[in-house]
Amino acid sequence: MPPPKTHRFLIIADGQFGPLTSKTANCCIRYMPERIVGVLDRSHAGKTAQAVLGFGGAIPVVGEFERGLALGASAVLIGIAPTGGQLPAEWRGWLRTAIERGFEIWSGLHTFIGDDPELGALARERGVRILDARKPPPNLPVADGRAAEVGAYVVQTVGSDCNVGKMTAQVELRDALRQRGHRTRFVATGQTGIFIEGWGIAVDAVVADFVAGAAETLVLEAAKDADIVLVEGQGSLIHPGYSGVTLGLLHGSCPDALILCHQATRTYIGDYHGREPWVKIPPLPELVEIYERAAAPVRPAKVIGICLNTFDLTDAQAEAAISRAAADTGLPTTDPVRFGAAPLVDAIVREAMAAR
Amino acid sequence: MPPPKTHRFLIIADGQFGPLTSKTANCCIRYMPERIVGVLDRSHAGKTAQAVLGFGGAIPVVGEFERGLALGASAVLIGIAPTGGQLPAEWRGWLRTAIERGFEIWSGLHTFIGDDPELGALARERGVRILDARKPPPNLPVADGRAAEVGAYVVQTVGSDCNVGKMTAQVELRDALRQRGHRTRFVATGQTGIFIEGWGIAVDAVVADFVAGAAETLVLEAAKDADIVLVEGQGSLIHPGYSGVTLGLLHGSCPDALILCHQATRTYIGDYHGREPWVKIPPLPELVEIYERAAAPVRPAKVIGICLNTFDLTDAQAEAAISRAAADTGLPTTDPVRFGAAPLVDAIVREAMAAR
Repeated sequence: MPPPKTHRFLIIADGQFGPLTSKTANCCIRYMPERIVGVLDRSHAGKTAQAVLGFGGAIPVVGEFERGLALGASAVLIGIAPTGGQLPAEWRGWLRTAIERGFEIWSGLHTFIGDDPELGALARERGVRILDARKPPPNLPVADGRAAEVGAYVVQTVGSDCNVGKMTAQVELRDALRQRGHRTRFVATGQTGIFIEGWGIAVDAVVADFVAGAAETLVLEAAKDADIVLVEGQGSLIHPGYSGVTLGLLHGSCPDALILCHQATRTYIGDYHGREPWVKIPPLPELVEIYERAAAPVRPAKVIGICLNTFDLTDAQAEAAISRAAADTGLPTTDPVRFGAAPLVDAIVREAMAAR
Repeated sequence: MPPPKTHRFLIIADGQFGPLTSKTANCCIRYMPERIVGVLDRSHAGKTAQAVLGFGGAIPVVGEFERGLALGASAVLIGIAPTGGQLPAEWRGWLRTAIERGFEIWSGLHTFIGDDPELGALARERGVRILDARKPPPNLPVADGRAAEVGAYVVQTVGSDCNVGKMTAQVELRDALRQRGHRTRFVATGQTGIFIEGWGIAVDAVVADFVAGAAETLVLEAAKDADIVLVEGQGSLIHPGYSGVTLGLLHGSCPDALILCHQATRTYIGDYHGREPWVKIPPLPELVEIYERAAAPVRPAKVIGICLNTFDLTDAQAEAAISRAAADTGLPTTDPVRFGAAPLVDAIVREAMAAR
């Protein structure tokens, strides 16, 4: 069962709050600004989120932890990874203070706060919940195909690469579908999505044999009270490091339909820039075929729309890129952040009706 | 560095030693009989492995643990999973005795013996090594493509399903290639292979983000002193539960060539027999295409041979199945256990020469 989503968060982003340096914090501010009371970053104290990021409105940046808590927080969200991976002594002090005063801790770090000898023990002693978003639940099953049998229409985002907008697309689609009155659930499969939704499994942190089973578990749960289930995809089938996560997620969640996400200006897989460009991103029609062929033996699913991330283009360039993608693939195409999700919402509703 | 492979093992298979009930034990007996001094199974005490399995010659089955150790063992190998998953009290006693007397413990269990509060502590105290074959090494990297750059010719087995002979094929090929004088290394990616080779990583037990990185690590190590590297494949790209492991392994090890393994009489993926037959295994030429297409975006690799498991056919049926597979695919085909590995060895050597 998803926990209630009533928390109001102070985000820790100390020393790293910025457009390119605090992805988790920024996504939380973009998608649940009403639940963010402030951001802790001593290097930007006194500014607003708007001034630092270009969005986020009047959310204040504070330089003192206790002042941040006093803004009306009920929980603390760790919105960046500390440099070096280890928990700095100051963070440890902040988290201790928060737990002692009964604030939940939500963390996406690779090292689990709940397993920290000091902080974990303190939280248990005080009965304070720590949500380590990357920690997989125990006893995940091997997938057995039950996700294919749910009544809900299941749509998964897939991508040309990591970090092209697979989560963002689903959050935009969730909001747009709900506005049209459709019972819709978003299935988070990465830590940022889990923060936004308050529920999910970071599938890339699951032992490989159970990735598909984790996806299946999530879809079964989400389908209980939704007619449309939107699964956040991960990685890419052509990403040398993470392709296994992508395929496990695809086969485990047994989607009815796929939405292909791509960043319009990207030509090579982005994680290998330190070397010569390595894996070239094929044309969109070829990517459509790669995903449909990969899904087919387990459960056929068609790509029904294209989601184009155009953040680094002018409006005219973005419109041209979208027209070109639509013409190349023959599929509804949009940048939902820039131009709204309507073409994809129409496609999902149409296909879901046809599948009944 | 692989450890020296000089151990002689007493295998624990208590209550489960048999042709279909002790796969790990049986593979060890098939592929390293000279290193097995005996098998502990109280229900078959006094028999030979040959009498119980149909192979294994005079390897004795004993009913007393200490008598088994006295047969000349230097290590204890756990060759079955205890029913229920928990370590039975009697096993615990045997393992305690073994550690106290300085015998290494090799285990493929999901629960790690080295992490057991009693046995792990005892082993550390006595300086006795416990090899938990399924325990991934710490600090595995995300794959970055270096496996594509090794000088060795890398061949990976891939399969229509789990348990069709991907490991067996590579062990047979290793022996046949070495007999012809080729410097060959077998890369074990599952616990049975690790027992046989004394080295490897059980990639299905690795956190999903690092499966490809684990494969890369293994290939880089094996290529240091080999001209031909044979990577044991896992699962299948069309297996709903394990496909992610298969793709991660394929993209991480960057093979030059693939050998497709199939059990001739199997028509559906085997792990879903409790339900209606679900995933139909496509014809071999289609499987060849599925694997070549999956490899292509990261590193193109051709299927260069077919390995057909014909254990449940008569000789005449097996010959017919092999002829048919060879005709359908146009590729060298054999059952290496039944008819020898020569056609595949020829293909590997030819392709490796051509790739120079």
